[in-house]
Amino acid sequence: MQKVFEWQTSGPGLYEVTREVDAWVTGDGLLTLFVQHTSCSLMIQENADPEVRTDLAAFFHRLVPPTTDPSMSYLTHTYEGPDDMPAHIKAALLPTSLQIPVAGGRMALGTWQGIYLFEHRDAPHVRRVIGHLA
Amino acid sequence: MQKVFEWQTSGPGLYEVTREVDAWVTGDGLLTLFVQHTSCSLMIQENADPEVRTDLAAFFHRLVPPTTDPSMSYLTHTYEGPDDMPAHIKAALLPTSLQIPVAGGRMALGTWQGIYLFEHRDAPHVRRVIGHLA
Amino acid sequence: MQKVFEWQTSGPGLYEVTREVDAWVTGDGLLTLFVQHTSCSLMIQENADPEVRTDLAAFFHRLVPPTTDPSMSYLTHTYEGPDDMPAHIKAALLPTSLQIPVAGGRMALGTWQGIYLFEHRDAPHVRRVIGHLA
Repeated sequence: MQKVFEWQTSGPGLYEVTREVDAWVTGDGLLTLFVQHTSCSLMIQENADPEVRTDLAAFFHRLVPPTTDPSMSYLTHTYEGPDDMPAHIKAALLPTSLQIPVAGGRMALGTWQGIYLFEHRDAPHVRRVIGHLA
Repeated sequence: MQKVFEWQTSGPGLYEVTREVDAWVTGDGLLTLFVQHTSCSLMIQENADPEVRTDLAAFFHRLVPPTTDPSMSYLTHTYEGPDDMPAHIKAALLPTSLQIPVAGGRMALGTWQGIYLFEHRDAPHVRRVIGHLA
Repeated sequence: MQKVFEWQTSGPGLYEVTREVDAWVTGDGLLTLFVQHTSCSLMIQENADPEVRTDLAAFFHRLVPPTTDPSMSYLTHTYEGPDDMPAHIKAALLPTSLQIPVAGGRMALGTWQGIYLFEHRDAPHVRRVIGHLA
């Protein structure tokens, strides 16, 4: 059972998609989510305090600043904008796919776990994520 | 086939769980392990020299120090303790789930690969990990 | 359906393996690739501009320099060479396994996605990767 999700983003940060995915899953099995892009990521993170998401985005922005930052002057792939190569690096550091057991029609997430699309680009994008349930 | 593992931790570091998982798997298929928390991780790493585990924990402690470290003063989610937000960041950087092929009742791990629960919090915790074999 | 791929590397960097994997997959399902080593990684990344791969390798080399670098003097597992412990750290940061949906005999990769073996060791190695399709 496969489905393509399309999610609109409007700049860097974490977008929660838990509810939409949960509404789709059914039965018992294993859910795989796979993002078809190399400049955004999927992530399971705390869904309680929104400060956690802000802090996560801040950490990764400091670990991998834009190529206009002097510390990143060694990068060569800059013609798609100062946020492009850092987006590829963040996409390398963070998951391209997630796997979540499903039981009784619900994802077996922990109490505080939510599913996020983590956008790394500045411009708005429509992101395609394939859901595979088996 | 699903099973919930519960593992007790007593502070940051890598806890090997290879033997317990290997005793559970059977037949041929694919094993998924999924941790139901956002402040610890799963990891496959070298199981030979214990210094590798110590060094790994040291690297991640330096990459993401406690919020009491001046370099982390930009973080806002601090009321659950100086180890809490760094634990979420480490959990973002490291796997929430593992996938391991199973053949003939054994995990197809390489010679030097072991499975670890990587605890990021200071206080003792009981960690729930779902095993899914299909 | 399982297959063992063996890929020869000759020093650090990203080696594209998309074509060989694509030639093997068939039907509909989910492909898992699992690397049986703790000093190299698997990765999905941009397959267009080769500068992206060079920049990725450069970023991880700076994030985790050889143990001969003064900033890494706290590491203790050094007797296998200055590139060994950094290779384990990079392998912890990057995927040991990939999951890719398969439909109509083709991997459902995005337009710009390719599959890479990311070698972290200096010496030539033969790397074993298990393909599991179900």
